[in-house]
Amino acid sequence: MSKSMLKPYRARIEPEWIDYNGHLRDAYYGLVLSYATDDLMDQVGLDAAYRASTRCTLYTLEVHIHYLHEVKSTDDLEVESWVLDCDRKRLLVGSKFHGALRAEPVAVAESMLLHVRQAEQVASASFPVAIAELLAALKLDAEARAQFGPSSRKLELQRR
Amino acid sequence: MSKSMLKPYRARIEPEWIDYNGHLRDAYYGLVLSYATDDLMDQVGLDAAYRASTRCTLYTLEVHIHYLHEVKSTDDLEVESWVLDCDRKRLLVGSKFHGALRAEPVAVAESMLLHVRQAEQVASASFPVAIAELLAALKLDAEARAQFGPSSRKLELQRR
Repeated sequence: MSKSMLKPYRARIEPEWIDYNGHLRDAYYGLVLSYATDDLMDQVGLDAAYRASTRCTLYTLEVHIHYLHEVKSTDDLEVESWVLDCDRKRLLVGSKFHGALRAEPVAVAESMLLHVRQAEQVASASFPVAIAELLAALKLDAEARAQFGPSSRKLELQRR
Repeated sequence: MSKSMLKPYRARIEPEWIDYNGHLRDAYYGLVLSYATDDLMDQVGLDAAYRASTRCTLYTLEVHIHYLHEVKSTDDLEVESWVLDCDRKRLLVGSKFHGALRAEPVAVAESMLLHVRQAEQVASASFPVAIAELLAALKLDAEARAQFGPSSRKLELQRR
């Protein structure tokens, strides 16, 4: 997988994030992912100043997280993110979580995000042209997209 | 959707769970789900005493969360959970999040969980017979399973 054009997000594991199984509680991978999304928003111009001046922001529609390896209290997390797809209003972000202790990712996530305007009613809104162009430029080509796995899937028990 | 045989899990929204969008941060739906899973474990006998005496527990393999409505600081959350499927070692839990302010769910989630033994190496392990039987008895029949929607799916942008 080629390196992302986006800067990775680094998180320190807080002691209260460790659960009774002695590892990072599943939900805190999600919190790190949420902070990584905030960081991505800053990087592409959807930052606090943009949100204040336009009343536009991103809402999360759906998140899938695949847990691949345990993360311990002594580890660090780095989240690398890619634009897997985008259109006028939506952004599909793929994220790989890396710990310091092994080469392969400890988790992989996909997040579907919607650009909205928070007026009296919240309504979906098109990205400004400059941001849409930046997101399109960041979007993985078909070959790199195919390499981003395991791909999102239906959750089911397949009988073996 | 018929009522679950499992007791619902109730959560209070903590002030620090509200993000810059003025609503519950996406990741905290995941934290509430994680606590609801702990509660489900207590209900089916995979509780702290079981974990201490057997060194067995559940590990989360994958979680999908669909965000359907915003949750505000003044709301409460109740998570109702169903056994969507199970086998010798795995448990697929479906969860609906309800707020106090509307009838329809504010979020729907699916969690794939694996029963493991935490010895020197962590390895998957069969459920004890009594727990496997209880889970099988809780499992939704095909009709109820079909009603549990929106079903888990591949995340992609479909061009409209």
